[in-house]
Amino acid sequence: MTRPLPSLETPQAAPSLDRLVVLVANDMAAVNHIILDRMQSPVVLIPQLASHLIAAGGKRLRPLITLAAAQLCGYRGTRHQKLAACVEFIHTATLLHDDVVDDSLLRRGAASANAIFGNKSSVLVGDFLFSRAFQLMVEDGALRVLAVLSEASAVIAEGEVHQLLTTGDLATTEAQYLDVISAKTAVLFAAAAEVGAVVAERPEEEIQALRRFGTKLGIAFQLIDDALDYAASEAALGKTVGDDFREGKVTLPVILAYARGTADERAFWHRTIEDLEQTDADLARAQALIDQHGTVRETVERARQVGEEAKAELLRFPDLPIRRSLMEAIDFAVSRGY
Amino acid sequence: MTRPLPSLETPQAAPSLDRLVVLVANDMAAVNHIILDRMQSPVVLIPQLASHLIAAGGKRLRPLITLAAAQLCGYRGTRHQKLAACVEFIHTATLLHDDVVDDSLLRRGAASANAIFGNKSSVLVGDFLFSRAFQLMVEDGALRVLAVLSEASAVIAEGEVHQLLTTGDLATTEAQYLDVISAKTAVLFAAAAEVGAVVAERPEEEIQALRRFGTKLGIAFQLIDDALDYAASEAALGKTVGDDFREGKVTLPVILAYARGTADERAFWHRTIEDLEQTDADLARAQALIDQHGTVRETVERARQVGEEAKAELLRFPDLPIRRSLMEAIDFAVSRGY
Repeated sequence: MTRPLPSLETPQAAPSLDRLVVLVANDMAAVNHIILDRMQSPVVLIPQLASHLIAAGGKRLRPLITLAAAQLCGYRGTRHQKLAACVEFIHTATLLHDDVVDDSLLRRGAASANAIFGNKSSVLVGDFLFSRAFQLMVEDGALRVLAVLSEASAVIAEGEVHQLLTTGDLATTEAQYLDVISAKTAVLFAAAAEVGAVVAERPEEEIQALRRFGTKLGIAFQLIDDALDYAASEAALGKTVGDDFREGKVTLPVILAYARGTADERAFWHRTIEDLEQTDADLARAQALIDQHGTVRETVERARQVGEEAKAELLRFPDLPIRRSLMEAIDFAVSRGY
Repeated sequence: MTRPLPSLETPQAAPSLDRLVVLVANDMAAVNHIILDRMQSPVVLIPQLASHLIAAGGKRLRPLITLAAAQLCGYRGTRHQKLAACVEFIHTATLLHDDVVDDSLLRRGAASANAIFGNKSSVLVGDFLFSRAFQLMVEDGALRVLAVLSEASAVIAEGEVHQLLTTGDLATTEAQYLDVISAKTAVLFAAAAEVGAVVAERPEEEIQALRRFGTKLGIAFQLIDDALDYAASEAALGKTVGDDFREGKVTLPVILAYARGTADERAFWHRTIEDLEQTDADLARAQALIDQHGTVRETVERARQVGEEAKAELLRFPDLPIRRSLMEAIDFAVSRGY
């Protein structure tokens, strides 16, 4: 009779990114080197401001996806390292502009770049990182990669404008909300995964499967982000809780709570989200209404479903440690912050 | 005995862009079509905001340079049209972000996009146009073109950050000032001219000559812009006069006036430019000091010299109408607004 040894590998352990991080550690070290090298400039404010955000850590989730996708496809070269750095630069540029647009004072639990360096610097350094991202992909030289990433950038910007327009608009439908999060978040996850498969020169079906995987992971990730904004403690989240509420963003927890609300509750949402007339007690009431209607729970449940669809896209690939750790990454994405 | 007929072609006529515009009119019509087509988006705020700036006219100077350079090189295809549109998109994205950074309320004599649509929209639509520019150049597919334009974008952003840092700093040297205007203005003129020669597949010496032509034209153009900010009437300039002064920008007319100023005058510049403590009468005093020291005149004279150097770069090309009208465009650039 055998007794199983206690192991960190048991399925009972909380899902984490750790195994994925270990599997791509060498590549990620190269990516970090490229990132630090290519954010340099004789204009010293540029590396100062960029390193505030880039060196401050974050999970490097998007470059992680590029590296993992390339490994899953059996890629043996180094092109994916530069492209992973490129994806992180696009993401960082977007964050810098996001924080300006949202007037955010916190990012990953620390003061945001615009809070320290000002909006003007954040706009211009964002432009620099964005341009630097394009230089990195031009150096790669593959037109397919250039098309994927330049298309992703345009769709992200389009999604950000769309989000600006739905802000404060309680008539936003679930479909419009899904369009916004697909464009502003999922497209970069999709591109990150796709370029990993493209450099490995895999057949088109595998490239498209990884693209769909990225899209679904990105949607699940953003659904959880939007749920956490009403559910988490600031310590766990590393950003100001209630940001979306204070900015009047119409996310799924609000869309569902508004749809199920009484006339009195709807009046509350109109005043706080549409008119942005908020008192100190309003965030607590918003959280109570969302709790009462179970809409955070439902948002998380949708993220779980989309996460399962993302996992299914990986089944056509060999059952290697990298595949198992990518699946665990999905579980991590939908369980973080709880 | 022959008597010359009176003619619009006499050298006495004020230099204008008219002849250049006529020579590339068919190409420019195609460029305008591409611009209008490619700024479309289902997110209607994007074409609304973009058309406010793009359709509002402006001289389309940068795409004009691309089209003229290609024609000067004997190019017969259509690739230059898409690339000229790409150059205009990069320029427009930069203007949108510039106006946000400078809090400008006027642009080309009309309300600026940020004044009408808000800073947030201007930042995000700028990002969209910038991404769309990259998509256009990816569609062209030539890595040399991609390298030139992505490098230009990074240098422009670097120059904008550098300018932000020299703002309010009276210790800025002439060399630093020239670095800033080379990066933020001349680099896009240089790239615009270079890609015209690149699509025509001319020898490297001709490509480099056109690049230098673009650089020098851009420097002359910006020197005049900085002179006009202290010299012109608002009606002639189509922008608010005194913007640079009010924003504490340290441009050549100020650098020279400060260097030649008395202790009392230097105290004036410190208070108004460094501390940004300005009264309604201060712009008039700044203009009087600049007039007294002749520093607008000297700035214009430098522009004329650089303009002559730009003309010299064209001498290796055939003496065709397009070459003569490009030379006239330089004369126009250094004489505008007077």
